[in-house]
Amino acid sequence: MQLDFSKSDGLIAAVIQDYSSGRVLMVGYMNAEAFRRTVESGFATFYSRSRQKLWLKGESSGHRLVVREISTDCDQDAVLVRVEPQGPGVCHNGYESCFYRRLDDGQWVESEARAYDPATVYGSRK
Amino acid sequence: MQLDFSKSDGLIAAVIQDYSSGRVLMVGYMNAEAFRRTVESGFATFYSRSRQKLWLKGESSGHRLVVREISTDCDQDAVLVRVEPQGPGVCHNGYESCFYRRLDDGQWVESEARAYDPATVYGSRK
Repeated sequence: MQLDFSKSDGLIAAVIQDYSSGRVLMVGYMNAEAFRRTVESGFATFYSRSRQKLWLKGESSGHRLVVREISTDCDQDAVLVRVEPQGPGVCHNGYESCFYRRLDDGQWVESEARAYDPATVYGSRK
Repeated sequence: MQLDFSKSDGLIAAVIQDYSSGRVLMVGYMNAEAFRRTVESGFATFYSRSRQKLWLKGESSGHRLVVREISTDCDQDAVLVRVEPQGPGVCHNGYESCFYRRLDDGQWVESEARAYDPATVYGSRK
């Protein structure tokens, strides 16, 4: 039983969830090679749609995602990756989760404080 | 601040998470109209890529998803929708979550029992 990479230009959605807290941290995309590397290395690896290249999450920040469990859905076109994050946050904007804005009466509002200073972590590379 | 529907043919990924348990239940896709209906109706509404039409989750099964909270990510090209599910499961195959198969030593294996009988719920419409 293989994953179905045919629906979105060779990509599947990968939902990243904190294994301990259950918080959804980010959504990335994987092609077949990114999925293979994720399984073999034990660190979540994505395919960047904007940069059009493989991307080991944490390669710049050091905030890698240690894979604890991988599930797939009924259509086999998405995976749920439960991870232990290394570092205080997965979001390049400095938050624990990329989902740091909540819809409140028609407006997106920040719903939490930053977990780290992205300028310190990413420096001039960002 | 608007959502970015430009990256995937007018669609954004929508991660559906159980508000109470934290379990990730499914990943769907929304176009702008599906998102608007989700917000206005309070029930998760998707755009079906295979059927190419709007899809109120639960329109056949009655298992609708009551929206409790919506967040968006740093790129504004995905939403996290925390819901209270009506009914025993969101998966049309009869499981609580569409993510009912886990990667175990290179094989996808079912990791839970069915929550309901899909033949009874969907009947001949499936």
